Amino acid sequence: MSNASWKNEMKNKIEESFRNLQKFICSELENIDQKSLFKSDSWSRHDGGGGITNTISGGRIIEKGGVAFSSVYGPVTEEMKSQLATKGNEFFATGVSIVLHPQSVHVPIIHMNVRYFQMDQDVYWFGGGIDLTPHYVVPENAAIFHNDLKKICDHYNSGFYDKFKAWADDYFFIGHRNETRGIGGIFFDHISHENTSLQKEEILDFCLMLGRSFTEIYNKQVNLRLDQPVTEDQRKWQQIRRGRYVEFNLVHDRGTKFGLVSGGRTESILLSMPPTSMWEYNFIPTVDSEEHKTLDLLKKGINWLEFIDK
Amino acid sequence: MSNASWKNEMKNKIEESFRNLQKFICSELENIDQKSLFKSDSWSRHDGGGGITNTISGGRIIEKGGVAFSSVYGPVTEEMKSQLATKGNEFFATGVSIVLHPQSVHVPIIHMNVRYFQMDQDVYWFGGGIDLTPHYVVPENAAIFHNDLKKICDHYNSGFYDKFKAWADDYFFIGHRNETRGIGGIFFDHISHENTSLQKEEILDFCLMLGRSFTEIYNKQVNLRLDQPVTEDQRKWQQIRRGRYVEFNLVHDRGTKFGLVSGGRTESILLSMPPTSMWEYNFIPTVDSEEHKTLDLLKKGINWLEFIDK
Repeated sequence: MSNASWKNEMKNKIEESFRNLQKFICSELENIDQKSLFKSDSWSRHDGGGGITNTISGGRIIEKGGVAFSSVYGPVTEEMKSQLATKGNEFFATGVSIVLHPQSVHVPIIHMNVRYFQMDQDVYWFGGGIDLTPHYVVPENAAIFHNDLKKICDHYNSGFYDKFKAWADDYFFIGHRNETRGIGGIFFDHISHENTSLQKEEILDFCLMLGRSFTEIYNKQVNLRLDQPVTEDQRKWQQIRRGRYVEFNLVHDRGTKFGLVSGGRTESILLSMPPTSMWEYNFIPTVDSEEHKTLDLLKKGINWLEFIDK
Repeated sequence: MSNASWKNEMKNKIEESFRNLQKFICSELENIDQKSLFKSDSWSRHDGGGGITNTISGGRIIEKGGVAFSSVYGPVTEEMKSQLATKGNEFFATGVSIVLHPQSVHVPIIHMNVRYFQMDQDVYWFGGGIDLTPHYVVPENAAIFHNDLKKICDHYNSGFYDKFKAWADDYFFIGHRNETRGIGGIFFDHISHENTSLQKEEILDFCLMLGRSFTEIYNKQVNLRLDQPVTEDQRKWQQIRRGRYVEFNLVHDRGTKFGLVSGGRTESILLSMPPTSMWEYNFIPTVDSEEHKTLDLLKKGINWLEFIDK
């Protein structure tokens, strides 16, 4: 088998496994939600490839959510050239992206993404991550989330968790608010055999493991506080926090910004937007309130694992 | 009187006139609203200057609005150097910015800004504009708005309206939606004696005339359709359009983006955010609906003056 066709086979394998990952996650999320079902929207891209955007709304757990798969290819655009420090004429990119906005203020917003990028069959990398945005930060629950991620990371490389956790702290940061988006998680980009101890197939396996663990990790977070009653003030706080989510995604998120200016599919990119949001001038929670405690915990560099119940 | 002190006197005059403009506009808007009053919030900037941010909410007409004055100065920052094609070590900037989000879907969102920028007493320019974002575009009402702006422009330069109207069409454009933000208005930047027929004092006078005409122009638009009843579907459409306003401001508006990354005062910059907003995956109004007609009119290059009732 020639080197070129092997790489092509690998590309197809990755695409297929991401496509299956989308199906698996949607099916699991429907089981968790027990009320709403996903609607599927297929689209194609003028210059090559396309995607399937699955959306859910009005559920028992999920107020608005999306699980998007895409596989696109074609000539490298000018925008890509200016953003990527690599040469090449043709690219291939495939990935799965998820954002779920829950009904209850006591259930966190979650985001997951795994992606693969390849250029002219010579250069490739994987990227992705999972991060959690609780409207109210409960350190013990954040610890459970981080511990789940650490276990997956440790299975592949004992240095991944610390590195990717710090990367998430830096990436999911709302500079103009001096707040992290939530309690972080893991984030990685441009990883390949060259800069890790892993073979390409092992990195794919790591991404798929993350993806296939996603629903279980999230379901745990859902059930931790789903039964808590919600007051009017808490519902307002949820709207304000959703506004911050909008601010992060539109002002800081590189994927969103790059997608929107480079002619990506707007409706799939903005799948991450919340169902509703609210802005109020200079809204500052009262001292010692639960809301204020949450703001104090939206900081980089917190070692959430310290909060694990022994 | 030396040249330098004359320029300093002019700088003070501009600052003072903008400060008074803010007072005038807030007082007029309170008269129009007849229910809510502005709250005033003064702030100072670490590196020099400060501002007064006036906000109003829960009014009869205005659901959420802000009228901000600022006057800031200090060393030119790295971010400014990379954005401005001019040399200098010290800058001075003053301006008034307004965004009003009305209660009723039948009353348009409006934005107004006038600003003055000066560098090391050698280089200066004015910028500003007014643009209107109706949730439902009514061409005859858009014509009234544009005609009001044209009359002011024509008083100063017969070429201003056409030039600044086209500039607004280009500026207030949501590229990733292929929609204009609303029906435009006028927009201008970097204007000075060098590139207009006007003396510096006349350009200031033009900016002040725009500012002092603002409330009358807006009040006319308010009263045109204030009495129309609002259905649930229309209220939802308003939330969706507010979402587009958020998208424009956070993704495309140069002033907002520059302010947020350069360490501007976040709460004053994001005064433009709506009170609430909504996103729904791939929301497409039904053919022949009023909502669809509005989308068809969110295009560049429409000569609104053609719709004036003769």
